[in-house]
Amino acid sequence: MKTSVAILGASGYTGAELLRLISAHPRFSIDHIAAHSQAGKKVCEVLPGFASPLSDAVLAHIDDPLPQQVELVFTALPHGASANVVEACLQNGKRVVDLSADFRHADPANYEAAYGQAHPYPERLAQTVYGLSEFVRDKLPGTLLVGNPGCYPTSVLLALVPLLQSGLVDADNIIIDSKSGASGAGRAAKTELLFCDLDGGLAAYGLPRHRHVWEMEELAGSLGGQTANIRFVPHILPMKRGMLSTLHLRGRQTETWHGILASQFEHDRFARVLPEGQLPSTHAVVGSNRCDIGVSVLDTDTAVVVGCLDNLLKGAAGQALQNANLMYGWDESLGLSDTAIWP
Amino acid sequence: MKTSVAILGASGYTGAELLRLISAHPRFSIDHIAAHSQAGKKVCEVLPGFASPLSDAVLAHIDDPLPQQVELVFTALPHGASANVVEACLQNGKRVVDLSADFRHADPANYEAAYGQAHPYPERLAQTVYGLSEFVRDKLPGTLLVGNPGCYPTSVLLALVPLLQSGLVDADNIIIDSKSGASGAGRAAKTELLFCDLDGGLAAYGLPRHRHVWEMEELAGSLGGQTANIRFVPHILPMKRGMLSTLHLRGRQTETWHGILASQFEHDRFARVLPEGQLPSTHAVVGSNRCDIGVSVLDTDTAVVVGCLDNLLKGAAGQALQNANLMYGWDESLGLSDTAIWP
Amino acid sequence: MKTSVAILGASGYTGAELLRLISAHPRFSIDHIAAHSQAGKKVCEVLPGFASPLSDAVLAHIDDPLPQQVELVFTALPHGASANVVEACLQNGKRVVDLSADFRHADPANYEAAYGQAHPYPERLAQTVYGLSEFVRDKLPGTLLVGNPGCYPTSVLLALVPLLQSGLVDADNIIIDSKSGASGAGRAAKTELLFCDLDGGLAAYGLPRHRHVWEMEELAGSLGGQTANIRFVPHILPMKRGMLSTLHLRGRQTETWHGILASQFEHDRFARVLPEGQLPSTHAVVGSNRCDIGVSVLDTDTAVVVGCLDNLLKGAAGQALQNANLMYGWDESLGLSDTAIWP
Amino acid sequence: MKTSVAILGASGYTGAELLRLISAHPRFSIDHIAAHSQAGKKVCEVLPGFASPLSDAVLAHIDDPLPQQVELVFTALPHGASANVVEACLQNGKRVVDLSADFRHADPANYEAAYGQAHPYPERLAQTVYGLSEFVRDKLPGTLLVGNPGCYPTSVLLALVPLLQSGLVDADNIIIDSKSGASGAGRAAKTELLFCDLDGGLAAYGLPRHRHVWEMEELAGSLGGQTANIRFVPHILPMKRGMLSTLHLRGRQTETWHGILASQFEHDRFARVLPEGQLPSTHAVVGSNRCDIGVSVLDTDTAVVVGCLDNLLKGAAGQALQNANLMYGWDESLGLSDTAIWP
Repeated sequence: MKTSVAILGASGYTGAELLRLISAHPRFSIDHIAAHSQAGKKVCEVLPGFASPLSDAVLAHIDDPLPQQVELVFTALPHGASANVVEACLQNGKRVVDLSADFRHADPANYEAAYGQAHPYPERLAQTVYGLSEFVRDKLPGTLLVGNPGCYPTSVLLALVPLLQSGLVDADNIIIDSKSGASGAGRAAKTELLFCDLDGGLAAYGLPRHRHVWEMEELAGSLGGQTANIRFVPHILPMKRGMLSTLHLRGRQTETWHGILASQFEHDRFARVLPEGQLPSTHAVVGSNRCDIGVSVLDTDTAVVVGCLDNLLKGAAGQALQNANLMYGWDESLGLSDTAIWP
Repeated sequence: MKTSVAILGASGYTGAELLRLISAHPRFSIDHIAAHSQAGKKVCEVLPGFASPLSDAVLAHIDDPLPQQVELVFTALPHGASANVVEACLQNGKRVVDLSADFRHADPANYEAAYGQAHPYPERLAQTVYGLSEFVRDKLPGTLLVGNPGCYPTSVLLALVPLLQSGLVDADNIIIDSKSGASGAGRAAKTELLFCDLDGGLAAYGLPRHRHVWEMEELAGSLGGQTANIRFVPHILPMKRGMLSTLHLRGRQTETWHGILASQFEHDRFARVLPEGQLPSTHAVVGSNRCDIGVSVLDTDTAVVVGCLDNLLKGAAGQALQNANLMYGWDESLGLSDTAIWP
Repeated sequence: MKTSVAILGASGYTGAELLRLISAHPRFSIDHIAAHSQAGKKVCEVLPGFASPLSDAVLAHIDDPLPQQVELVFTALPHGASANVVEACLQNGKRVVDLSADFRHADPANYEAAYGQAHPYPERLAQTVYGLSEFVRDKLPGTLLVGNPGCYPTSVLLALVPLLQSGLVDADNIIIDSKSGASGAGRAAKTELLFCDLDGGLAAYGLPRHRHVWEMEELAGSLGGQTANIRFVPHILPMKRGMLSTLHLRGRQTETWHGILASQFEHDRFARVLPEGQLPSTHAVVGSNRCDIGVSVLDTDTAVVVGCLDNLLKGAAGQALQNANLMYGWDESLGLSDTAIWP
Repeated sequence: MKTSVAILGASGYTGAELLRLISAHPRFSIDHIAAHSQAGKKVCEVLPGFASPLSDAVLAHIDDPLPQQVELVFTALPHGASANVVEACLQNGKRVVDLSADFRHADPANYEAAYGQAHPYPERLAQTVYGLSEFVRDKLPGTLLVGNPGCYPTSVLLALVPLLQSGLVDADNIIIDSKSGASGAGRAAKTELLFCDLDGGLAAYGLPRHRHVWEMEELAGSLGGQTANIRFVPHILPMKRGMLSTLHLRGRQTETWHGILASQFEHDRFARVLPEGQLPSTHAVVGSNRCDIGVSVLDTDTAVVVGCLDNLLKGAAGQALQNANLMYGWDESLGLSDTAIWP
């Protein structure tokens, strides 16, 4: 008897990936698929890659009632729009993994600063687990609500948190230069996301302060135990998937950092530390739920640390499923792969 | 003293290319740039690549009056919307090169069949020159209105017309398999044209009868002298520019076809016949106004003929400028290059 | 107890895909991985995407002896080089799925015509099954040697064979225009396959007669029951994976063709016929082992039929595994997915 | 009467771009084209985009004697190999623009540290002008030898030098995160540069100290007047052209930096400072010889400055031609465009 789940917000890139992963999952069955503007259409009209019978399923509307047997809901909706839907699910007795930004902040002031609106359910935030799986495994079994991390923060925090915990990084001087594939920008029909507008183009954006900075700084504190000052410059790239964050760090005893990271993730399947001096490539992670981490020491005081993942998998749908597995006390890797798809 | 021109419809990919070419032209000066939904914005807000002062120019509205000194107007508007604008320009004493489909058909019945609406100015059609430059040079100096050919028809007709004229092609059995870069689909903000929706994707479309078939068959008659029956399957590809049409032909004396084409274009700068057996590549034409043509004879009765061009240049803006040069009696290559930009 | 397999020729694109699929297979275990020029290196030095422990495995040399427990060998070697290796495996009591061209032809004369050399083991050819899975399921359980079909022939024959069998296609006038992603050209370090040489480029090649024509014509006879005359023009495209073959066909009663194909593949998971008039896209198949087939009827006598697949999966490694599953009498879909990976 | 030039090393990406630019130049004529391993082939066999007669020219060998009328030589050869060829040209009375790294360093110790070999002609270095055009215009008319800057240093130094000169940047703490299109890696047939190996891939490389760091630090001193300590992380991207360098800077009075840069380049055609807060995109520069610079102030002490250019134009062949124009006392923009080619 499989556990019944719903996917709300299935028509975007992240939703498609949730659908793909969960439809092949050994212990979850999808009993409800909903979308907003695409409601009423068949899956095959909106998402190209599914085979029958899933391709013939009709998308419900986000506001349609959930089937009673649904236990767990994945919400992949725009921030702001997600909170109400999540609250309704919780009121309705469901557990939720929310892939929006609406439940990533424990501190509602950070949410408001980052997203320009007061949080509608601030009392929920204390009950929420920020789902950076490798660091919160013990908190997930009992939780009703997981705020699934952003893709940029995941690529950064997996590498940064252990170093912050060591106290060896200068937390006041963290520079992060991130590069993201275009799927991170979503599937809204915008001119600047058209193939011909994007292909061959490369630019920084989100300055002076991208909203993920609040998320990273908050978690640097709550997970890393440091008040961090992060300068963050994201770039969008002409590739579909893949994210690479280059952390330019200062501190001390940099020669020990590789060992700190390596021992932190020694037994992890979805966070891998490469041999010292070797640098990650999106090629080695796209299609997998793995985050690769590389360390290159420049001198005693400075090092470059790189985090690299598939923004739709470990950066979104994959980590959401990893969290869901852990919520049910299962092997976190059920339905997930640590092998990239290449070429 | 340069000749004053206007560009109407400058905010799309073809408009951008017109602007780039004509702003560097030795004998034309651009005195009016207009758009529809983007009117009121600066060029730099809509098109990324221009330097000052052109980048600072403000886009007029399509319906704004043209400056009096403007002699020639390039219209790059959607079919249907273009006809009225063109008619107003003509009434106003301007000459026009129209890049839409609205003045490509001499026979209004073909226009109506292809575009699903009666032609609003059928009497204009007889006064219009279909601007397949290499075949109509002598008609261009006196004309007021050029209907600039579609990109698919240009890539096909340059290779096909001389063979039809020879009488050696079986005109009743012409199969054309075309592949187009994505810029041919225009710059409207549609989900299916997003980078992530398009990259890595390849599909046929436009069946059973793409509207360019009427254009090709009509010109096969008027230029080639044959009643042709064309089966045409276009495909869209994940590349920005470039178009390649593969003509699967039957007929007789195929061993003479290469020579027919080679002698037809012997003195042409923008139509080049490759050595027999050598096949064109978009690499050799993108960035140039050249159409490359290759012939591979399979046997006495069958041959493959390939036409290849940059859909935004020889397939649109470049040929428009070539036609404009000829309208003024100048060297047709003014402001145009026969060298590709590679890599 | 899993069945032990070896992969010979693991360092190319097809080899990587075999390794990825089979390492996740529920009933096969990989006990030997070999390469030619890359022998002696670790998997992670040659292929980027694998996690430990597979990434740490050292590549044996092609000529190294196989472990005794190996029952089945997948050979992904260049044609010509493969035959000797396959023969040695067979002599050694192993079963083989050969992904090269060396055992695709029942008639050695065709092999010689296509590959320019006499077949070294012509007596083996009669014992070999051409592994177009959907048509030879009953022959696979007992066979020792499968000649795995080429990617172009697979994309063509799945759609063509049922129509040939119906007798409604004009077998003497078959035109096929195929488009392939670049991984089909292999991983040899050639200038013309460099990113900058290939990106944005599109060209036909292989004329007047690509070697896969012999394969297609031979199978049109043996599976389709018709002496076919195929004109075939392949094109290489700037995308990593994906293959689309556009068949321009003549015949009669074309209005029945969709039904013929639909009923042929009604119960197949890896060959899907789209609703009439709908055309396949590589987006819907890349990452899956599925071949999508579309039919567009132009008139009673002519139709366009399109076959579309992932050249590394249904066109190579995926079909090889499908065949291997059938050789062991298992569900053919073990370890294979019918869901594409998108975006 | 045009000035006669030679291009040595024409078969790579930079050589192709030199050939394209100079063949359209109003005052230079190309009288000699040479290559190394491709010598003896026609241009059209090696480079796809040229039209007759240039496409029919036969490549001489690098070591062949130069025609007497040649006054100026462009050398686009690998570092190490270039020095001897350049020296021979100079001995032979020619002027040279060398695009290799061999004459970029005034201090031979830096050359040796960066390239691992002693400089063979250290006495030449003092006579050489480092051709960062905007800063050395007055030195170019008399010079015999220009060491053309590397692409990374050009994208960095144009933005950095004026800020160093102002004394407001903390020169001891400069972090540069650069992203380069694949053509920057050259045209050697290497597996890691294949389309399928590179497309979709993104990685940092060149750590801990890429050889361009010596070049940047040396010029930070000689042009910027500061002893700089640069941490530099380059990344290679799946796009053909385009380079973007993100400078993460500390200092003081950052609110004045935009003005400093804007006034520095106020009259420059090929270095453009965008309005404050606006960030460059490769889209706006690829195909042009322009470097775009953007400034985003984070706070009084920190700012992000971005330099962006076409690595084959302002980063290589374009700047080489700009330098050549200046060597002859001509308008520096002869044969060069400040308009990008887009899409």
